[in-house]
Amino acid sequence: MLINIRYEDGEVKFIDTTLLPNKFRIVSTKDPDVIIEAIRKMKIRGAPAIGAASALCLALAANKAQKNNKEELKKIIDDYARKLIEARPTAYNMYYAIKRIQRVIEENDNDIRQKILDEALKICEEDIEANRKIAELGASLIKDGDRILTHCNTGALATVGIGTALGIISYAAKTKKIFVYATETRPVLQGARLTAWELRAQKIPYKILPDSAVGYLLKRGEVDKIFVGADRIFSTGHVINKIGTFTIAVLAKRFNIPFYVAAPTSTIDFKNKVEDVKVEERSREEVIRIKRLYIAPKDANAFNPAFDITDPELIDAIITEKGIVYRPFERSLKELIL
Amino acid sequence: MLINIRYEDGEVKFIDTTLLPNKFRIVSTKDPDVIIEAIRKMKIRGAPAIGAASALCLALAANKAQKNNKEELKKIIDDYARKLIEARPTAYNMYYAIKRIQRVIEENDNDIRQKILDEALKICEEDIEANRKIAELGASLIKDGDRILTHCNTGALATVGIGTALGIISYAAKTKKIFVYATETRPVLQGARLTAWELRAQKIPYKILPDSAVGYLLKRGEVDKIFVGADRIFSTGHVINKIGTFTIAVLAKRFNIPFYVAAPTSTIDFKNKVEDVKVEERSREEVIRIKRLYIAPKDANAFNPAFDITDPELIDAIITEKGIVYRPFERSLKELIL
Repeated sequence: MLINIRYEDGEVKFIDTTLLPNKFRIVSTKDPDVIIEAIRKMKIRGAPAIGAASALCLALAANKAQKNNKEELKKIIDDYARKLIEARPTAYNMYYAIKRIQRVIEENDNDIRQKILDEALKICEEDIEANRKIAELGASLIKDGDRILTHCNTGALATVGIGTALGIISYAAKTKKIFVYATETRPVLQGARLTAWELRAQKIPYKILPDSAVGYLLKRGEVDKIFVGADRIFSTGHVINKIGTFTIAVLAKRFNIPFYVAAPTSTIDFKNKVEDVKVEERSREEVIRIKRLYIAPKDANAFNPAFDITDPELIDAIITEKGIVYRPFERSLKELIL
Repeated sequence: MLINIRYEDGEVKFIDTTLLPNKFRIVSTKDPDVIIEAIRKMKIRGAPAIGAASALCLALAANKAQKNNKEELKKIIDDYARKLIEARPTAYNMYYAIKRIQRVIEENDNDIRQKILDEALKICEEDIEANRKIAELGASLIKDGDRILTHCNTGALATVGIGTALGIISYAAKTKKIFVYATETRPVLQGARLTAWELRAQKIPYKILPDSAVGYLLKRGEVDKIFVGADRIFSTGHVINKIGTFTIAVLAKRFNIPFYVAAPTSTIDFKNKVEDVKVEERSREEVIRIKRLYIAPKDANAFNPAFDITDPELIDAIITEKGIVYRPFERSLKELIL
């Protein structure tokens, strides 16, 4: 099985997803700053992968502190936590992982570095297990013959395990005949580059399509269900996910096509309100050129939000490892974690 | 002023728009097959430009017939008309131009080749004039300070004159302060490559954005009006236009943002019904690679419709050179040509 991110022999190893599908390269590092840079540059991306990588990053950072110097350790972890949040501020899984690691320091006085590493590895293990449960639960929504649309990449390359939305698809494809439409997902092309690569490896039949073609595809009646992931889910059921998700949800509603969000509960933000979170905007360069090829005038400005926000009324269900929940999410999400 | 396509010294000259914005190259030819290939490969694109180029292509083809051999001329023109339609079957302006040229043959017995050329040049002139009128009429809908979204390229590079939707924007920008959002328009990137290039040349402030970001942009309340072109308008008001147009129209309706279609009356198809016209699907290669750069697995399949169909209830007005018309279009479009 493909493992996107892991800890082995004192090093963190991860796939540089920016090189796919043309090159497959695994990066090994003991340097927490390499992880931060990988998150910033989207070599590591996908909210659950970002969460796990953040935990492992802090475990590497802990090695910078003198043994048993709790104050120094706390300072280093807080510094790196800040740097992680600066690198990519949206995925709630990152805050969740940081809080888990910070709690280890608060609650322990001995062997803290080892306990931080244990906690980071536990976060990774939990993601693998959550992926598995999400896949099982979500696959129950898929029928033989279903044509499924998915956006961005939510597979093994976005998590520690088999994925969230794409994990469901992969799991269902083992026993059911399905067809997948994968949006190319501009500007970073996670659909064309990564989802297509994963589907191909698993021999699941698929087509990619420009993001702009989703409306026409749905209008033609060629999609039965839509599954997407999430970078942050609010207690109200508002979902922050890859730019374009909201548009797909609006179209799905128009044509009455079930629209499902799949994510581990570590993605749920019960603390902040949707209106208080600013959507990350990334560089114009990411839009105006692909690798070295300019696709617009070199001095063109670009609007490049990394995410958008989907309203709860557009979402039919949220699939987590603890169960599938339905509207009103305000109540069902709370019950989930009781 | 930029002239995209013209007849000069016995040759047709056109800008190879596939090379923009990186290279500006004018192609000169006496060979009608070069024009057909240019249309197929989208060197010449945009419904009004395709219409004019088709007329000029037939004028060049007419030179292949012996002088005053009406039967031979008719056969050659019919052959080339078929080849043109095979190259790109959607733009109604092409059928309109072909019919105009065929009528010249039917109605004349002398000097037919010259008369065909005269008719082709007249079609070009009419497009320039229609563009001007559309720009004037459409600009009356724009207020100082408006932030306008447009899709694909509908400027000088898509017509013989200053353009349709983008012509309106250019004209308005001469007297009003406006800001333009140009969708990049995957897969052929006419927005990022061509619209940005035209706006830049005219010093109109703009940003490009991924097609998937339109929903979020509208949701944030950053667009006041939307102007798009058309490849074919049916008597019912259904509009075939560049893939992604329908999605933008659905989003515009959700946020109550005026959605305008601009096109010359030569785009209106009173003969066929929307359900009888098949939307052109282009190659998977157009989606999976940009120039020589593969952005997906090399054997990936792709869904690549060139156009979609926007329902009349999503369109606030259609702007033609003969006037601005409103719903119900079934009546208003008919009145327009009386």
